[in-house]
Amino acid sequence: MSDPHKNVVGDYQHGIEVMNRLWGKGVTEQLRSIWKKASPDVERYITAFAMGEIWSRPVLDLKTRSLLCLAAAVALEREDQVRLHTQGALQSGATPAEVIETMIHLMIYAGFPAAWQAMVIASKVISEHEVTKGK
Amino acid sequence: MSDPHKNVVGDYQHGIEVMNRLWGKGVTEQLRSIWKKASPDVERYITAFAMGEIWSRPVLDLKTRSLLCLAAAVALEREDQVRLHTQGALQSGATPAEVIETMIHLMIYAGFPAAWQAMVIASKVISEHEVTKGK
Amino acid sequence: MSDPHKNVVGDYQHGIEVMNRLWGKGVTEQLRSIWKKASPDVERYITAFAMGEIWSRPVLDLKTRSLLCLAAAVALEREDQVRLHTQGALQSGATPAEVIETMIHLMIYAGFPAAWQAMVIASKVISEHEVTKGK
Amino acid sequence: MSDPHKNVVGDYQHGIEVMNRLWGKGVTEQLRSIWKKASPDVERYITAFAMGEIWSRPVLDLKTRSLLCLAAAVALEREDQVRLHTQGALQSGATPAEVIETMIHLMIYAGFPAAWQAMVIASKVISEHEVTKGK
Amino acid sequence: MSDPHKNVVGDYQHGIEVMNRLWGKGVTEQLRSIWKKASPDVERYITAFAMGEIWSRPVLDLKTRSLLCLAAAVALEREDQVRLHTQGALQSGATPAEVIETMIHLMIYAGFPAAWQAMVIASKVISEHEVTKGK
Amino acid sequence: MSDPHKNVVGDYQHGIEVMNRLWGKGVTEQLRSIWKKASPDVERYITAFAMGEIWSRPVLDLKTRSLLCLAAAVALEREDQVRLHTQGALQSGATPAEVIETMIHLMIYAGFPAAWQAMVIASKVISEHEVTKGK
Repeated sequence: MSDPHKNVVGDYQHGIEVMNRLWGKGVTEQLRSIWKKASPDVERYITAFAMGEIWSRPVLDLKTRSLLCLAAAVALEREDQVRLHTQGALQSGATPAEVIETMIHLMIYAGFPAAWQAMVIASKVISEHEVTKGK
Repeated sequence: MSDPHKNVVGDYQHGIEVMNRLWGKGVTEQLRSIWKKASPDVERYITAFAMGEIWSRPVLDLKTRSLLCLAAAVALEREDQVRLHTQGALQSGATPAEVIETMIHLMIYAGFPAAWQAMVIASKVISEHEVTKGK
Repeated sequence: MSDPHKNVVGDYQHGIEVMNRLWGKGVTEQLRSIWKKASPDVERYITAFAMGEIWSRPVLDLKTRSLLCLAAAVALEREDQVRLHTQGALQSGATPAEVIETMIHLMIYAGFPAAWQAMVIASKVISEHEVTKGK
Repeated sequence: MSDPHKNVVGDYQHGIEVMNRLWGKGVTEQLRSIWKKASPDVERYITAFAMGEIWSRPVLDLKTRSLLCLAAAVALEREDQVRLHTQGALQSGATPAEVIETMIHLMIYAGFPAAWQAMVIASKVISEHEVTKGK
Repeated sequence: MSDPHKNVVGDYQHGIEVMNRLWGKGVTEQLRSIWKKASPDVERYITAFAMGEIWSRPVLDLKTRSLLCLAAAVALEREDQVRLHTQGALQSGATPAEVIETMIHLMIYAGFPAAWQAMVIASKVISEHEVTKGK
Repeated sequence: MSDPHKNVVGDYQHGIEVMNRLWGKGVTEQLRSIWKKASPDVERYITAFAMGEIWSRPVLDLKTRSLLCLAAAVALEREDQVRLHTQGALQSGATPAEVIETMIHLMIYAGFPAAWQAMVIASKVISEHEVTKGK
């Protein structure tokens, strides 16, 4: 987390480390390359600020942050975010049951269809994750 | 959680217990009375299904469920829900820092204005909670 | 409904009639005056197009259209719209039970909090409507 | 609808009957199997509570409930829900014109793009439905 | 813009001209044919009212209106609208940098994922546009 | 805008200057004090990153950025944002007509009620602004 006396925020190098821990080097490189192609500044903003500042704060660990992201992704019906944060949740110590439970909990807040469509996506990510781990 | 062989779901009595634990008897009675006035069936649905079934499931504890609700409340910009689930989070063991951190994390997903308006509301609930505890 | 061979759409005079039928002359004049103050063109667009064209179409009657508006108002959490279309629904033949039932139905689609907050608003409009009728 | 003196809600068997009436046995089995794969509890919640309790209530018939779902699906831009509830509306007695009219009515509330994209999807379902009926 | 003394709004012929200027004749014909298939009235409403009235108003030019549409498309996460209004923005004089900048600006309001997914889509449209121009 | 070779982003001092230009010193101090009370880090993030980085970028000027914010505020139905960015738009050179026109343009995208409610709010800000200027 950045120094309260400084004029600037974020930490690009730390942002890359957090992404590697959450999604692995492959996915991280792929995401950064997509962002860079859209705009090199945007890649810097997401890496330095979103990942190197916000995600790097204390108080809540990576697993809890991933579950919070899943809750937001269900509420806002963002399918790619469901996919990404299911991966991050599993990688940072959440069990498949905790991922699915997050979505079951959201049924009553985001509507049943938003929740079950997220579950269908998460289930696929969970299966792939288990195949990869089994190897 | 209801028996998988039964034709029915929910547990009204258990729902009331969960609400008492989350929000205290005063708020619980007030909420149930608002719901009943709108529709007695709706009071039953929320108490038996939302609280007595979904919130009563294992895998995630009341604190985590409250933080997930806060994430959804920020994402969907539901002010009354920010208020209610801040109370529930504090009552079920979350620190004020964890509540605010949940909203800081949401800045990059729900937009800065959605997050800081939720923080303003949560800060008031936190102050009141600390005054009450101090007595 | 406008003639398919014409270059134009809408019917301002008919729009005023539809509003009078839905909300009474008092509310209609109040709404039109609010719209005119924001922009005279906007008052014309809402009156001629929204009310004089869309609401004036055949196939669905005013009661069904009001219930559809209520469903959208719950889904999009628009409190003023819940108020307005509850009035219109009651005025065009919906029973209070049908208004509340619309919101109960929406619980599973828009989330429980969106639905019960709409019910609280609708209940007040229903009470006022019954007092007015009783006089 | 469940007994107000009972501790529980929902009716699983009745939920299956309602789904069969709305979407036919084939679609119903397909949906239940998708839900079960995501989580067997979720299949029970949707079947017993959403379908066996909410959809099984009196006051509004299946056709009206399907049109309300379409209004919500347009407002929340849920394409799969547009598809499903167009099928249900047609199956429970709505004419193709009523389905399309619901979306035309929503133009002014959910925005023109949300409405016409729903119409494109609904038109395809309507064509398929007519081909099937013609056989 | 329609005459304030008339009972009607919109201008169908002018709407077609505005669309031709924004998106070219090919895309315009394709869109109108999609709308007509869904409902001939809807094609008239969009062409005469949305394009021939709203888009034809003075005060803001076509470029600014296209950028405003992009802001709304990012905020509401409407991918087809991002595509369409990127085309219109470029065609009416916006530079590729202005289109991308609109989305960078939206990051802090609509959430980072909504903005970068829109950028990915807009980048493709920009590339295709440059290839076409280069020919 | 921050240097592409640096590990950090944002510019706190510049952020304050941009806010002063957009909203005046009084509103700026009030906002920063609200943010600080919620969380000192959040005040730094908004000031340094949102204002000192994103709003400080070239390509689009402060007036255009304010109008884009208004489009997003209408689309997401954020009343406080309508208020704030109407002030900023007027302060950075937009005419009252351009502010209202932005909302008229949004009618067909965000729905008529979202647009006219924003217009009511903006009209009040415009009147107050003109009174202040007249003094």
